[in-house]
Amino acid sequence: MTRYRLDIAYDGTNFHGWAVQPGLRTVQGVLQDAIGTALATLGQSPESAITVAGRTDAGVHARGQVAHLDADLPVERLGAVARLVRQKLPDDIQLLASQIAPPGFDARFSATGRTYCYRLWDFNSVIFPPMQSAVTTVPEHLDIGGMTQAASTLVGLHDFAPFCRAHEAAKAARGATTIRHLRRFEVVRATDPSRTIECWLEADAFCQSMVRSLVGAVVAVGSGRRDLAWLAGIAAGQTRAGDVTVLPPDGLTLEAVTYPPNDQLAARATEARNTRSLDDAA
Amino acid sequence: MTRYRLDIAYDGTNFHGWAVQPGLRTVQGVLQDAIGTALATLGQSPESAITVAGRTDAGVHARGQVAHLDADLPVERLGAVARLVRQKLPDDIQLLASQIAPPGFDARFSATGRTYCYRLWDFNSVIFPPMQSAVTTVPEHLDIGGMTQAASTLVGLHDFAPFCRAHEAAKAARGATTIRHLRRFEVVRATDPSRTIECWLEADAFCQSMVRSLVGAVVAVGSGRRDLAWLAGIAAGQTRAGDVTVLPPDGLTLEAVTYPPNDQLAARATEARNTRSLDDAA
Repeated sequence: MTRYRLDIAYDGTNFHGWAVQPGLRTVQGVLQDAIGTALATLGQSPESAITVAGRTDAGVHARGQVAHLDADLPVERLGAVARLVRQKLPDDIQLLASQIAPPGFDARFSATGRTYCYRLWDFNSVIFPPMQSAVTTVPEHLDIGGMTQAASTLVGLHDFAPFCRAHEAAKAARGATTIRHLRRFEVVRATDPSRTIECWLEADAFCQSMVRSLVGAVVAVGSGRRDLAWLAGIAAGQTRAGDVTVLPPDGLTLEAVTYPPNDQLAARATEARNTRSLDDAA
Repeated sequence: MTRYRLDIAYDGTNFHGWAVQPGLRTVQGVLQDAIGTALATLGQSPESAITVAGRTDAGVHARGQVAHLDADLPVERLGAVARLVRQKLPDDIQLLASQIAPPGFDARFSATGRTYCYRLWDFNSVIFPPMQSAVTTVPEHLDIGGMTQAASTLVGLHDFAPFCRAHEAAKAARGATTIRHLRRFEVVRATDPSRTIECWLEADAFCQSMVRSLVGAVVAVGSGRRDLAWLAGIAAGQTRAGDVTVLPPDGLTLEAVTYPPNDQLAARATEARNTRSLDDAA
C-alpha cells in the first residue's frame, strides 16, 4: 500500500456535499468512482476510499481541498492513473495535483489549519452572472468597517458552540469539543470589478456550519440590524444561537489546508486524533 | 416615446450571442420578451426593441453592457416595469439599473469606448470550477512580461483588418472601416487565489472577434511559440491573419461602456453614425 496526496477543486452547486451518501451525487462518491475505474482499467485493485481534510456541506465549493488515498499502486503508474481520472471527472471537479504523500501524512488529522472564504455581493456590488454560483447576494448595504470590527471580536481560542449546529453540542456533551482557535477573520471589499466582499477565516478546524454562522452574525452587524453587544451576548452563550442566520452554502469556498513541516506530520496526526475524534465539517 | 437607459450583466454560456435570431435563445431576445411582457402586464404598449452598445458573440459575457429602449411608458411606471422584468428574467441575465436616458443618448452611437477583459488560466493558475464559465484554460506556461511587451506594440490608431473576420474586411471594401483606436491593452496576473491572467483592452470600438484575435496573438508570444517579429508581420498585414488563433468566447467579458458628458452625447452619436455605419461586435 502506498499513500497518495490529492489536491482537488470543485463547484459544490450540484453535489450533496463531500461525504458518500447512497443514491446521491457527492464529491467523494464521484471522485472515488473515477479513481476506482481508472485503477481497474490499468489492472490495479480498484480500492479507492479517500480521506479528506474538510468535509464540506452540500453546495460548498473548494479551491484547495486535500485528500489522501491508500492504494495498492506502484508509484510509476500514478501519472497514468491521474490522466485517466482527469478524463473521467465531470467539469465540476478538478484533480489539481497528485503525488506520493510524505511519511506520516494524514489529509485530515495532520492538517493544522483550514482557510475558508465567504463571498458576498451587497448593494454596492455589481452582480456578474458567471460567478454567481460562488457568491451570495444580500439585499442590503454592508459596512466593511463595522463587519471588520465585529469579526475581530471573534478571533482567538474560544468555545464556538453558539455558532455550531445543535448536534455538535450534543457530541460535545459526549466528550468531543467545540473549542476552536480562530486565527483569522478578515473582511475586505475586493478590488475586482464586481466589488465583491470577501470574508476570510482560518482556524485549526471548524465545526459544521460554523463559518456560515460566524459570517451571518457579522453581516447582521454590518447591515446595522444588530450591534456589537448582541454579538458579544451570542458569543458568550447568553443569547439563543437560533438568533444567528446560517448563510446559504453557495458563497462559501474552502480555499486552503495547511500542514506542518514533514517531520511533524505524524505527531500532529496523533495529537489531533486524540483531541478531536468527531467529524469536522463546514 | 421616452428613451430609457438599461445596464445589463449576463453569463453568455447558454446564449447564441446578443442579437435576436429566430428559434435561438439570445440575450436580446430573452430581454425583449421579458420587457414586452412586463409592459403588457401593466397595460402599456409591449413594443420593446432595444439597441445595445456591444453586440457580443455567442458565449461572450457582460458585466457592464448598456442598452436603450424607446417605450411609450410614463416615467413614473419605470420602477414597476423594472421589478416585473427582474422577476421574469432567468438567472443568467441581470438588469442592474434602469433610468431615463439623458437627451441625445444612444447606447450604441454615443459610446466613446468599450472595455473588455479576457481571462486565462495557465499552468501557474489554480482552476476554480465555479468560475470556469468565464475563464479560458490554456495548457501552457504564459510569460506575463512577454505578453505585456507584445500587447504594447498593438496599442494606438491602426487598421486592425488582420485581426478582424474576413467578412469585416469585405465590409471595409464597401466603405466601412477596420481602423480602430486601441487605447489600452494590459496584461496582469490578478492577485486572486487562482492567479488568473487578465487581459484588459479598451478601444473606441472593436470589430467582430477582434479582442479574441488580439489576445490569441499575444498568448502565442507569451507561450514562446511566436516572437515579436511574427506579431509585427501580422499587424502590418504581411502575414495571413489565419495564422492568428481566435480564442474561445468563454474567457471574454464586456466590462464597461464609456460615454461622454451629457452635453456631447448627441454630437458623438452623429459623428459615430457617419464614420462607422456597420455593426461592431466582439
